[in-house]
Amino acid sequence: MEQIDTIWTNARIVVLDENQKIKILENSFLAIKDKKIIKIAKMSELGDFRSQKIYDVNNKLITSSLIDCHTHLIFGGNRANEFEKRLNGESYAQIAKQGGGIISSIKSTRELSFDELYKQAKKRLIALIKEGVGTIEIKTGYGLDLKSEIKMLKVAKKLEEDCFIHIEKTFLGAHAVPPEFKNDADGYIDYICDTMLDEVHKLGLVTCVDGYCEHLAFSTKQISKVFKKAKSLGLNVKLHAEQFSSMGASDLACSYDAISTDHLEYIEENSIINMKKSNTVAVLLPGAFYFLRETKLPPIELFRKHKVPIAIASDLNPGTATICSMQMMMNMSAVLFSLSVDEVFLAVTLNAAKALGLGDTKGSLELGKDGDFCVWDMEHPRDLVCAYLPNRLDLLVRNGEIINV
Amino acid sequence: MEQIDTIWTNARIVVLDENQKIKILENSFLAIKDKKIIKIAKMSELGDFRSQKIYDVNNKLITSSLIDCHTHLIFGGNRANEFEKRLNGESYAQIAKQGGGIISSIKSTRELSFDELYKQAKKRLIALIKEGVGTIEIKTGYGLDLKSEIKMLKVAKKLEEDCFIHIEKTFLGAHAVPPEFKNDADGYIDYICDTMLDEVHKLGLVTCVDGYCEHLAFSTKQISKVFKKAKSLGLNVKLHAEQFSSMGASDLACSYDAISTDHLEYIEENSIINMKKSNTVAVLLPGAFYFLRETKLPPIELFRKHKVPIAIASDLNPGTATICSMQMMMNMSAVLFSLSVDEVFLAVTLNAAKALGLGDTKGSLELGKDGDFCVWDMEHPRDLVCAYLPNRLDLLVRNGEIINV
Repeated sequence: MEQIDTIWTNARIVVLDENQKIKILENSFLAIKDKKIIKIAKMSELGDFRSQKIYDVNNKLITSSLIDCHTHLIFGGNRANEFEKRLNGESYAQIAKQGGGIISSIKSTRELSFDELYKQAKKRLIALIKEGVGTIEIKTGYGLDLKSEIKMLKVAKKLEEDCFIHIEKTFLGAHAVPPEFKNDADGYIDYICDTMLDEVHKLGLVTCVDGYCEHLAFSTKQISKVFKKAKSLGLNVKLHAEQFSSMGASDLACSYDAISTDHLEYIEENSIINMKKSNTVAVLLPGAFYFLRETKLPPIELFRKHKVPIAIASDLNPGTATICSMQMMMNMSAVLFSLSVDEVFLAVTLNAAKALGLGDTKGSLELGKDGDFCVWDMEHPRDLVCAYLPNRLDLLVRNGEIINV
Repeated sequence: MEQIDTIWTNARIVVLDENQKIKILENSFLAIKDKKIIKIAKMSELGDFRSQKIYDVNNKLITSSLIDCHTHLIFGGNRANEFEKRLNGESYAQIAKQGGGIISSIKSTRELSFDELYKQAKKRLIALIKEGVGTIEIKTGYGLDLKSEIKMLKVAKKLEEDCFIHIEKTFLGAHAVPPEFKNDADGYIDYICDTMLDEVHKLGLVTCVDGYCEHLAFSTKQISKVFKKAKSLGLNVKLHAEQFSSMGASDLACSYDAISTDHLEYIEENSIINMKKSNTVAVLLPGAFYFLRETKLPPIELFRKHKVPIAIASDLNPGTATICSMQMMMNMSAVLFSLSVDEVFLAVTLNAAKALGLGDTKGSLELGKDGDFCVWDMEHPRDLVCAYLPNRLDLLVRNGEIINV
């Protein structure tokens, strides 16, 4: 008899079959030792294991916990004011003139104390955790000076400590040009490369560097400098690419072996072929697509054709993706993007883990992977995709331990 | 000094100005006596009142509680299976052939015990209550035989008793033709008029009668018979109208002074003029519009032009509107229908009350109205419309008492 840490019995366990489709193992158990999954088997094999803690889940469904692989969860203030102005007929240009847009979030984020920034972000994080999110990526990018970017990273670190979920922290200095560098984007890029990245890297909080490559933000040339520096520090890169235009952003990212490129409504087929070559995940963001009333769909069929893995994330941010719900994102992926149930499930579990460089340890219930999972009061993952109902999560488990927030 | 029941102090109270726009009374209090609002005034006037219970809301926002005026909240099973089949390319016709559609929900609803039907519906109701819904309409229409329709009504009654919110119960016998009357819709209409309506009315549970008037459901002539009978029993009427085609459904409803007509994507201007004449509320259902990927918008501008009040509801049902969230509906009304913040707020409060015939007692914070309100951790109702975040409700109050579910 093997002594283990926790056993979850009488479960219906959702794994992926050889085609990465949903497969339910009925009447099974899952065993955790040293935070890892060490056994998934039929209840009839339970006799070989002995554990101090046994949780009978009473025929409920166990899935890998959800992963939100692209968020701007930490920000000050909100932009409801701007949203209302736009509903009342004002243009983006008028609003920007009044100090709106990303710059307004930068102002609020800089002004807020650590504690207040933490408090506001925690509310959003808890909403996601209560929906089954066990791993989340959080980007900086509303500070844009060293002090404020570090403040954001430290908030993320404290959230991870207090909420017990896994948080991947991404440095997004190249999100917008801050007021100090107005009309000097190149100067700001130099500041990122020569100062900020080194300082942020020293703190050891960041695993990945992101940028916003678009006509209204930074050019491929500017982003290339940032990525070169990031790579020299041994960091992963990813990119906001082809959201509003096709300008070679994804190609650039793939040339640096980006773990993901994100948005991609305007990506073209040759760039998708490049993504396949560099093992880059396509992160689609239905919340932004919805909120901006975008009509150009990301080219789903081409991602399928070239076997580029598709992940889905919330893109949670105050200006263009305000829906704080991964379950709504799952529904939108089906309704708006026509992804199948299998594709949606994969997109918020294993493919989302891959988009964070965590494909070997998270995103599926497999031997040796982290004991991160959800116990659901539902029959099948398709119920999560088809209907939005916030109270179906029974338990969220990380490393084999129940998370209470 | 006047003795009252409860006082809510240090509040920012949202009322409607003379143009039915949002107006915030800063630094104010609200007083309840005998379940009704008897005073709303500045804190400086508080000295005249004495109460046993004083709740200091600490500068939080108080609004009228939300009203979901069109739901099919009680149903058995789910239709995730069909949804998945559609995503995988099967047509409605193929699915219907296999027993799908409304008929599948009827089968499940009939099969479920009272307790199980109650349990499933309660989960959905609690999700809505936690978002600030204090009054909800629930339709029958998945029973379609006397026993099962009454089972649904009794579930609604028990939900009202256990969850402490106000539930308006609507009889929707004319939802679909049940298997017993296959190819005999007229015979079923006769059964509704000659048997079911009398029996249901005797129970005293129903205030309103609804129908589904569409080529794939019932004709105007058939619905007219049902409405005639409903009116003879002193019941209000409302109608699912002009969702997929323009066939005079709304005109028919208005000729019976319907309190609302609902869906209305295909309504034409002359019918909107009729709605104005009969004081009929336009209930728009963004959740169904979204889920069905409808592209024809309801004619918002014409409702504005003819001053027909617009309400918004969830339409919650297992087949065509699966998002169990009034806050998401508020966001969708702005994002998809371009309603202004003031319009959205009015649509889920006073206009929704009017759509239920409750405009005199609910839907706004006014003297003499029911003490039904929400305490929110937010600055302005625009925050509710702009962003979805499920945990912003501090308290839900009905008749001056805090609801705990």
